[in-house]
Amino acid sequence: MVYELEGYKKKLARAEAIYAKSKTTGKPEGARPTNKIGFLGLIGKKVDSIEYYNAKINEVTPKLEVEQKVTRKEKQQNSALVFFTSRVAAAAAAQSLHAHIVDKWTVTDAPEPRQLIWSNLKIKFFQRQLRQYVVYVLVALTILFYMIPIGFISALTTLDNLKKLLPFLKPIVNIAAIKTVMEAYLPQLALIIFLALLPKILMCLSKAEGIPSQSHVVRAASGKYFYFIVLNVFIGVTIGGTLFSTFKTIQKKPDSIVSILASSLPLNATFFLTFVALKFFVGYGLQLSRLVPLIIYHLKRKYICKTEAELKEAWFPGDLGYGTRVPGDMLIVTIVLCYSVIAPIIIPFGVVYFGLGWLILRNQALKVHVPAYESYGRMWPHMHTRILASLILYQVTMLGYFGTKIFHYAPFLIPLILLSLTFGYVCSQKFYRFFRDAALEVACRELKEAPNMEQIFRAYIPPSLSSEKIDDEDYEDALSQVSRSGSFV
Amino acid sequence: MVYELEGYKKKLARAEAIYAKSKTTGKPEGARPTNKIGFLGLIGKKVDSIEYYNAKINEVTPKLEVEQKVTRKEKQQNSALVFFTSRVAAAAAAQSLHAHIVDKWTVTDAPEPRQLIWSNLKIKFFQRQLRQYVVYVLVALTILFYMIPIGFISALTTLDNLKKLLPFLKPIVNIAAIKTVMEAYLPQLALIIFLALLPKILMCLSKAEGIPSQSHVVRAASGKYFYFIVLNVFIGVTIGGTLFSTFKTIQKKPDSIVSILASSLPLNATFFLTFVALKFFVGYGLQLSRLVPLIIYHLKRKYICKTEAELKEAWFPGDLGYGTRVPGDMLIVTIVLCYSVIAPIIIPFGVVYFGLGWLILRNQALKVHVPAYESYGRMWPHMHTRILASLILYQVTMLGYFGTKIFHYAPFLIPLILLSLTFGYVCSQKFYRFFRDAALEVACRELKEAPNMEQIFRAYIPPSLSSEKIDDEDYEDALSQVSRSGSFV
Repeated sequence: MVYELEGYKKKLARAEAIYAKSKTTGKPEGARPTNKIGFLGLIGKKVDSIEYYNAKINEVTPKLEVEQKVTRKEKQQNSALVFFTSRVAAAAAAQSLHAHIVDKWTVTDAPEPRQLIWSNLKIKFFQRQLRQYVVYVLVALTILFYMIPIGFISALTTLDNLKKLLPFLKPIVNIAAIKTVMEAYLPQLALIIFLALLPKILMCLSKAEGIPSQSHVVRAASGKYFYFIVLNVFIGVTIGGTLFSTFKTIQKKPDSIVSILASSLPLNATFFLTFVALKFFVGYGLQLSRLVPLIIYHLKRKYICKTEAELKEAWFPGDLGYGTRVPGDMLIVTIVLCYSVIAPIIIPFGVVYFGLGWLILRNQALKVHVPAYESYGRMWPHMHTRILASLILYQVTMLGYFGTKIFHYAPFLIPLILLSLTFGYVCSQKFYRFFRDAALEVACRELKEAPNMEQIFRAYIPPSLSSEKIDDEDYEDALSQVSRSGSFV
Repeated sequence: MVYELEGYKKKLARAEAIYAKSKTTGKPEGARPTNKIGFLGLIGKKVDSIEYYNAKINEVTPKLEVEQKVTRKEKQQNSALVFFTSRVAAAAAAQSLHAHIVDKWTVTDAPEPRQLIWSNLKIKFFQRQLRQYVVYVLVALTILFYMIPIGFISALTTLDNLKKLLPFLKPIVNIAAIKTVMEAYLPQLALIIFLALLPKILMCLSKAEGIPSQSHVVRAASGKYFYFIVLNVFIGVTIGGTLFSTFKTIQKKPDSIVSILASSLPLNATFFLTFVALKFFVGYGLQLSRLVPLIIYHLKRKYICKTEAELKEAWFPGDLGYGTRVPGDMLIVTIVLCYSVIAPIIIPFGVVYFGLGWLILRNQALKVHVPAYESYGRMWPHMHTRILASLILYQVTMLGYFGTKIFHYAPFLIPLILLSLTFGYVCSQKFYRFFRDAALEVACRELKEAPNMEQIFRAYIPPSLSSEKIDDEDYEDALSQVSRSGSFV
């Protein structure tokens, strides 16, 4: 209902803007905008937009208020946000076992209010686990077998089939230039669409896991995307052919993976060199000039946006998009490391990529993009693990590569791999837990400023339940606790 | 020094008992016992025992007291026992991260005072991890390659070699009857000694891991022993030959493990049937009659024990010996489950084994043995995991066995295995954590009786530092805290 109401409000503002504009450009009394009330505004009775939306808003608002009241009073969910007046107590409570049956009462740190996913908050312990495994299986299937449906679709959407199905395209398709382009790109079309949609699909899948915090969902999607691009771009291109048949070989002879990789890597050095160069020429160029958003903004301004609010929304740069940016950069790390011995010319490319990245992305992060949430550095261990995994993959392939070159001192590399593994293990043991749990020592430190508990509490009222005239009696419990604790320090 | 002093005290008591006895049996003035002060009491000057030990005790006691004082004041270790007056605070503190670098400050629940291993308490986080891995590698090597040194020793200790090395044995060895027995058992001698010592070796290795609680050490040793007997008795006997060569086959063809097991199992059914029957006839018979301890007690009483205290010590039944009993029983579970389909006659044997076990061991646990510590049920998840692992091993071998019999409905067993895995996973998630961490809900419950904090605190003074006339000023800190908290509830 909240979304419905918001939609009506937006449409009303839009209709009013159109009406106001028509007054200045056309007849002085203006042309009142109209719309059809049926499916997607295409069919049904034609009505006056401004009147219609006003009526709709007046109709929905009281309904929403009643619903909000009922929800607050009766539809309690099986999860709660607990507010503490002591940081140490909060830190200890978030890390302790509460009921002796684990899934009866689970606790986590609350994410920021703006990144809380309300619909996932109430999911129970084992349902969350089950969803996680189902999603993992789905993602694994997608990563390994995505070529099958795409190949199928590609086979169907040939130019001849298209002509048969959509006969009105015939005159266009028969032009020689267009025909050549179509013939070149049509087989790839399904793949291109799939690759463009993949981050969104992975995001939806990660959300379906039941993770209640937006930053964690992004992290989960980023991890999945990393597996996809490493397996399909790096290993897929390197080994060539379908991944599945390679996996069958590896399953039969588990020792062969290193030698397969090592013998295939040198053949693809040029490809990956171009890949890295392209990434920083085109990728950073687009990122810095923000050409695509600029075009989209101007198109939107001309044809779609009518109100100030819509224009602002079209201009809004959004956040940095960690979900695709991080795995992309991790892929470059992997490629540059793995090829650094085989084709050392890739090293300056890698240096330029990350050097430019430091300059450009720092600028973008500080001056262009608007962070949507604050995850308190939880992306750090995620990236650190993957960089270390790349490093170890590099050392193993280097060992294999030296092996194929019959370099007799190659076994001296084995301690290096063991050292890297030890380093990763020590880091994960020593540092990672603090990203997950707040240390009591840190929670003990005095704050410079006492937080306003009521403000914090109000920030956690879900958007669908917040209204201008909030009746405090519904939240009496929490508020009275706040006032009782009085001068909170 | 404490051990030295205790030794002298015991020997003094013994010498006095011998003297008292000699008065009643021999001359009225008695024969004062003497001993030599050199190596092992075999060489050196002969002295009067009672006078000598009295002098020694008088010499060591003040030294010990000085040393204790110095230790208390100056030799502080980098670990501490923290006493809480609130159970909830204690439970929360034991589960929370304290410093943001994990290994700077680690916490665990304190074990009972009588099962605390003081020397392991001060070991640091990463040293403990390192020790653990070193021990794991050592145990894995022992389990896989223990036949190599034993075979080597067996080859050396033939009867002919023995005659050459120890010529005084020649007349005995040449008797026909003894010769036959020796020839039969000598090659096995090293193996028999190794198997008898193995639980003790594993116990020492587990202690070397740096685990600070006795019950945890026993659990760790029990887990290692389980791997040893399953690999060497169950799988070793089944597959036959050396384990190592089988592992090489499996490494080359990872799929083959199930079919190897399934095809070798039926051949050994009789062996394992006898094994289980022997275990309950001989094992429980010995356990119930306590024949071996009885013989040892009477031998000790006749030849060694002189004082009341020594007699009591000889009679003391000890605890149940979970370190070898649990893995032994787990092995029977594994054998009975795995053969239940191949040779169903084993099922009644298994029922009798565990039925008798319930009757006999309950009696022994309640009325004979004296528990050395209380681990609050932490053995439960240990055994539960292993029973489940046996169940799944059984289901997998059953599937393989049906496969070799070309039984077409065998794949219907696959959901059963998946269900077992799910069951194990759910159990581990739902219940295991409560065995490790105290739930706040439980810690909140009111106690029937307020514990005496001073008594608890005194129980945790290490035996080497406790003396009759303890100067409280050294423990001022802890004691003053206790008295300050006053009437503790």
